[in-house]
Amino acid sequence: MSPRAEFDLIARIRNRNLTAKASVRTGIGDDCAVLAPSGENEVTVTTDMLVEGVDFERTWMPAAFLGWKSLAVSVSDLAAMGAEPTGCLLALALPPELTDSYFDNFMEGFLQGCELWSVPLVGGDISSSPIVSVTVTAFGAVPPGQAIYRRGARPGTFITVIGDLGLSRRGLELLQKEQPLLSEQLSTRDDLERWSGTPGRARAFRAHLLPRPLLSAGIWIRKNGLAESMIDVSDGLLADLQHILQESGVAAEIDAESLEPLQTVVKPSLELEMLLNGGEDYALLLTSTREQLGIMNERHPEDFPRFFTIGRVIQGSPSISLLEGGSKRLLSCKGFEHFR
Amino acid sequence: MSPRAEFDLIARIRNRNLTAKASVRTGIGDDCAVLAPSGENEVTVTTDMLVEGVDFERTWMPAAFLGWKSLAVSVSDLAAMGAEPTGCLLALALPPELTDSYFDNFMEGFLQGCELWSVPLVGGDISSSPIVSVTVTAFGAVPPGQAIYRRGARPGTFITVIGDLGLSRRGLELLQKEQPLLSEQLSTRDDLERWSGTPGRARAFRAHLLPRPLLSAGIWIRKNGLAESMIDVSDGLLADLQHILQESGVAAEIDAESLEPLQTVVKPSLELEMLLNGGEDYALLLTSTREQLGIMNERHPEDFPRFFTIGRVIQGSPSISLLEGGSKRLLSCKGFEHFR
Repeated sequence: MSPRAEFDLIARIRNRNLTAKASVRTGIGDDCAVLAPSGENEVTVTTDMLVEGVDFERTWMPAAFLGWKSLAVSVSDLAAMGAEPTGCLLALALPPELTDSYFDNFMEGFLQGCELWSVPLVGGDISSSPIVSVTVTAFGAVPPGQAIYRRGARPGTFITVIGDLGLSRRGLELLQKEQPLLSEQLSTRDDLERWSGTPGRARAFRAHLLPRPLLSAGIWIRKNGLAESMIDVSDGLLADLQHILQESGVAAEIDAESLEPLQTVVKPSLELEMLLNGGEDYALLLTSTREQLGIMNERHPEDFPRFFTIGRVIQGSPSISLLEGGSKRLLSCKGFEHFR
Repeated sequence: MSPRAEFDLIARIRNRNLTAKASVRTGIGDDCAVLAPSGENEVTVTTDMLVEGVDFERTWMPAAFLGWKSLAVSVSDLAAMGAEPTGCLLALALPPELTDSYFDNFMEGFLQGCELWSVPLVGGDISSSPIVSVTVTAFGAVPPGQAIYRRGARPGTFITVIGDLGLSRRGLELLQKEQPLLSEQLSTRDDLERWSGTPGRARAFRAHLLPRPLLSAGIWIRKNGLAESMIDVSDGLLADLQHILQESGVAAEIDAESLEPLQTVVKPSLELEMLLNGGEDYALLLTSTREQLGIMNERHPEDFPRFFTIGRVIQGSPSISLLEGGSKRLLSCKGFEHFR
């Protein structure tokens, strides 16, 4: 991309980026953005990349949805620490043949997310490239010592999922099978709803194309001290649970039965495999004591997403067992690879 | 990239990333990295992308140099604010056919930079992609109100360049012309020196492949309050001076004569055009009062890079004039585009 074209695009972003927060001293337009001192708070940072041909195809991922999703993925990492967003950076690589409207639609979706989750866009970089690729870095703040890590899981505590599992994978499989040509004009949830056909398909497409990170839920959990460890489900339930187990040096048992309400959330219901290994769910996976669970059940806000306790943390080297109809199947580290 | 392969690469980075700083509470291996409170300090953040086929060719950019340069580019943005680095994030996309040694060499160069500039690598993302692309986000800290912006230039002050201009562009042109097949084994400055042939070529190649951001110089300038505005030269002298002028609402005059010592730093000497519009110099460009310049001349540390005052800030709408042999040529906004 010529520097001139890049300056034009940056000027367009500066004009449209209305999100302003006291935390931003200087946003787009200098060598660095400058954020206000975080005072006592610790700063959480995360970066995620979405690459055309690997994470999405341009034919079925309209620019506005890509903009939305690229931010959602990073915000979900903040949610998993219980952090409040303070800002984000966007590095965007676009093929030169893409029109200005592709860029504008992308930014529309991205800035909608900025608005919704209160994450001001404070800077970035733009380049040309043979393929579309997006890297988003997000910052958050959390009171000292309160960030929720993967490493806190203890034997005798319970494993809970907040949000849906497997829906996003079903959406992806439908998109890969049908290879639809989703118009660039498709840019809102309502558009997607109308395009999808049935409510079941709509939910699956929405989960994959317009995921909603569980930011408020993550912050509420942290504020009320209700999790000893937490992660967001991006690689799949088993893979991400395995991360917690590995960092904590413990094992886990999952009750197949407890997963049923997660399977029957759409018609036709989701296969167990999809639930366990789907990925890109952006649900929250946490471990809590019985007391913490009790408080979560009693006091959660009205608009809190549905959650299910699906198993227990037990002593042992990091591995996952599935309890199903009275029998116990070991899905060891190796086991969950086979599942893929 | 399969999640398994990604986990392996992440484990390899965790094992090799020895840089630890008090500012890092939790580095690689959770949903977010967690940095210590910055106290009174403001936080500076910047992100930069290097894309194969646009910013480099894999044939002449050995992996270790790419690792080094991708960090150097972001550290230079911190330098331009006068900020001390506190951490960085790396998003790396690699073609699946690249070997593990490509990744290891890349990380070797990257982590050498982390060590040299005291920037701990705290997290990142890895993806597969048809082309190599690297996005680095760097964080820094600066005492409240002391960051040096582009917007502070005032009429009657002087324009100074710290470091070299045009060398990097010469290096790039030689690489593009000769299309050498630079071995992956080439991984140190000494290797590059030996490969280059003459000292002049070596300087040009080094400037382009292994740039050294002027971090200590930028911090020294800020600590001593010696610049009213500052930027790093990444798009080229004229383009980046224009950024300062635009943000400050002023014009500039440059003395062609004052550029001569910058041109004759190598043999054959650099053409004026290369100096003005080369780009990727990672020099510092600043405006200062006569008093500030006096202090800079008298008190700069022994190992300070060479610097030259090349012109003046004047009243007027953002534009650059070149004073050459008694005549004055306007290189207006349009003018410097023609230069490219």
